[in-house]
Amino acid sequence: MELSHIEHIGIAVKSLDDAIPYYENVLGLKCYAVEEVKDQKVKTAFFKIGQTKLELLESTDPEGAVGKFIEKRGEGVHHIAFATSTGVQNALNDAEEKGVKLIDKQPRKGAEGLNIAFLHPKSTFGVLTELCEDPNK
Amino acid sequence: MELSHIEHIGIAVKSLDDAIPYYENVLGLKCYAVEEVKDQKVKTAFFKIGQTKLELLESTDPEGAVGKFIEKRGEGVHHIAFATSTGVQNALNDAEEKGVKLIDKQPRKGAEGLNIAFLHPKSTFGVLTELCEDPNK
Repeated sequence: MELSHIEHIGIAVKSLDDAIPYYENVLGLKCYAVEEVKDQKVKTAFFKIGQTKLELLESTDPEGAVGKFIEKRGEGVHHIAFATSTGVQNALNDAEEKGVKLIDKQPRKGAEGLNIAFLHPKSTFGVLTELCEDPNK
Repeated sequence: MELSHIEHIGIAVKSLDDAIPYYENVLGLKCYAVEEVKDQKVKTAFFKIGQTKLELLESTDPEGAVGKFIEKRGEGVHHIAFATSTGVQNALNDAEEKGVKLIDKQPRKGAEGLNIAFLHPKSTFGVLTELCEDPNK
């Protein structure tokens, strides 16, 4: 597959209200959007740094993936999202052909209207890996 | 502090020999350097994607930070490193003034000759955070 840059890093936090001031006041970044993604049972806050976004993820449901992650491992980096310019479906097909276990067999909609899909961390040396593309680019 | 981009993401793996082929053959990235950083008790492998590097970290000593991380949490994202253009020492001073716990009070040498310092994950909402600058830029 062809990846162009790191689109975002997903970071699980217990509370956006607690974490956003750290990112703004200490790291000097600016929160430009807060968005609920009901499908993923999270509320997200976005920051931009260079080519990459930081996506803070607060669980809205303890049974969701982020809720379970925090319960098990505490706050911290949840996933890395790579931008592909040659199509998420093509990248998924390519990964599956090479023996990678997929969480999503087809792209679905994520935050900010991106087409996204996840590879399984068991096949990616422990890193929950998202592939994404902006359908408007 | 002023941060320009994500310099690298540090990813703990059990074996570089096992993980490098995944990054090269599945993700399509190219490993351009392997370097031992004795001070940090790791062997590192570097990949570039857009502005950011991926730094795979294999422990060379179970008592080192990466060895302990893998023992406790398994493979996965170990730290995020932000590039600052206004000096690591300034950024450390700024963070400390704002109540952030520091791992390093002064910059030290990291991989690729960068000046680096770490903030403590207890003060950064679970993300082990590195600040770095290239002294040759």
